[in-house]
Amino acid sequence: MELYLIRHGIAQERNLAIKDEERSLTKVGQDKTTAVAKHLYDIGMRFDLILTSPLVRSRQTAEILTEMQLSSQLQVSTDLAPQGNIQAWLNWLEQQQYLPNTKLALIGHQPNLGAWASMLVWGEVTEGIILKKAGIIGLNLPTTGIALGRSQMFLLTPPKFLLG
Amino acid sequence: MELYLIRHGIAQERNLAIKDEERSLTKVGQDKTTAVAKHLYDIGMRFDLILTSPLVRSRQTAEILTEMQLSSQLQVSTDLAPQGNIQAWLNWLEQQQYLPNTKLALIGHQPNLGAWASMLVWGEVTEGIILKKAGIIGLNLPTTGIALGRSQMFLLTPPKFLLG
Repeated sequence: MELYLIRHGIAQERNLAIKDEERSLTKVGQDKTTAVAKHLYDIGMRFDLILTSPLVRSRQTAEILTEMQLSSQLQVSTDLAPQGNIQAWLNWLEQQQYLPNTKLALIGHQPNLGAWASMLVWGEVTEGIILKKAGIIGLNLPTTGIALGRSQMFLLTPPKFLLG
Repeated sequence: MELYLIRHGIAQERNLAIKDEERSLTKVGQDKTTAVAKHLYDIGMRFDLILTSPLVRSRQTAEILTEMQLSSQLQVSTDLAPQGNIQAWLNWLEQQQYLPNTKLALIGHQPNLGAWASMLVWGEVTEGIILKKAGIIGLNLPTTGIALGRSQMFLLTPPKFLLG
């Protein structure tokens, strides 16, 4: 299956007046995320399911992707929150019915997404992957057996390279 | 510095009537490489130097990039041929004058480019990176010291995701 790890768009700065989990996308964050979603739609990307972190900035990012018709299915998963870990959602994934051509998108946070991609491809965490806000990682997961250390990466891009 | 590893475009199939090193880009390969180069130009990419493998399909790819004004400097390096190894061109690189904002593009072949990116970021070769023809890898190399195992990847994309 193809797994896409998408970082939330640009959000309000951290400040004492707002809880971290309630920070919203800024106008620029909304616009750039919408432009990325439109580009993905235009090149034919569709996801069978979008799974998002429960934090507001991720949920808003996921909602933009569904509004732009990249998927008709959207679920919230606490496993994708900043304190989540890869094994939790890999366990969830193993229980799903998916086919070799299934496309799943996870919306979440750094450094988790880069670390998870690194674990899936190289079997260990490094700080070697830079994932910008509204950026995307694309991975091929093996059709059978363990995904950790056995997946392949075919995409890693910040918005800049997608938006002409 | 930023290092871009770019795979040559789609070339003639292997056949007994032509030497491997003389295979040319097909019309589709030329057109897709030109479209990628135009997109890179449009988003503001410029390279201080393009270094290419001596094989025809790589040289033609590099020439398209220079014709599209992505760089005014083009050199051929045998270190980038299929039998080349990373240490040879890293030794060359260490002797150059470059600044933190230098942008260097290497045009070459698989599996070398994916293996080199893997060595630069993770310190070892894996088969975990998929680089399509006319696809691009973008890496940040450390400003001082050894690059192997200490670089970061910010870009990996096939043409499909760049071309709307």
